[in-house]
Amino acid sequence: MKICYKSIGKIHTPFKKIKGMPIQSKSSIGIKGTIELKKEFVKGLLDLDKFSHIYLIYHFHKSKDFDLNVIPFLDNKPHGIFATRAPKRPNQIGISVVKLISIKDNILEIENIDILDGTPLLDIKPYISQFDIHEIEKNGWINNKTANPNETISDNRFK
Amino acid sequence: MKICYKSIGKIHTPFKKIKGMPIQSKSSIGIKGTIELKKEFVKGLLDLDKFSHIYLIYHFHKSKDFDLNVIPFLDNKPHGIFATRAPKRPNQIGISVVKLISIKDNILEIENIDILDGTPLLDIKPYISQFDIHEIEKNGWINNKTANPNETISDNRFK
Repeated sequence: MKICYKSIGKIHTPFKKIKGMPIQSKSSIGIKGTIELKKEFVKGLLDLDKFSHIYLIYHFHKSKDFDLNVIPFLDNKPHGIFATRAPKRPNQIGISVVKLISIKDNILEIENIDILDGTPLLDIKPYISQFDIHEIEKNGWINNKTANPNETISDNRFK
Repeated sequence: MKICYKSIGKIHTPFKKIKGMPIQSKSSIGIKGTIELKKEFVKGLLDLDKFSHIYLIYHFHKSKDFDLNVIPFLDNKPHGIFATRAPKRPNQIGISVVKLISIKDNILEIENIDILDGTPLLDIKPYISQFDIHEIEKNGWINNKTANPNETISDNRFK
């Protein structure tokens, strides 16, 4: 079964190349960008400005194929693609939580961006603390890593 | 630009009808279901069992069209679709964080499910507390609601 979506807008960021990008929005505090929403969807933004954080769901447009086992940026051992956030996935869908600064017509100013410039946007959802903060028992292979995820940047491995 | 994905598996849950469903995974603590991953993707599950919570990204297969303004379950006033989690969106993509109980071959046992039975799965990502817990300043229109989001269930408005 094929499931098709359309881009609802474009994400503009300072990151023009995959190499050297922050790997998570928590590693890019203060880095600003914009969303240029297609004008036809502006009505859908009503009351979004009442949230400080939003989910962006987007298409990893530079990832053409996928590997089921990958060595992610924070490790030197392979893991299953579904146990990582790496972009070369069976379906190239990315999610990030960013800070929403302002909305003016179809332009959203956002902060804490870990997304490549020109990325096609698929959806925006509010980040709601009552729904989205979960108490976890196991934090996977991440727990064992000495690397600071907030200081690690990307290289070319997922190009 | 059309962006096409394929289902990587199916989500089986006790919810056969849209009416009466939990509206968030936090409203369905203890409710069990399974993911039946297509066999070809099993290698991608390596080390996923080291995480207690996972993101499911899926297709709202019963939502055929969309409204830019909707009255969500927790309110009696319209909001922009992007300021809600309602399923009738420009792109019918849903995300939920569920608890991962076990993995046996291509079957994942999961808990805290707010998803309709038979939903096509698009992606699985680990929920990582360092990345996914955000300190927010504004919780949107949700803050003003007296209804308990964890006790509210769905009706037929998004059928």
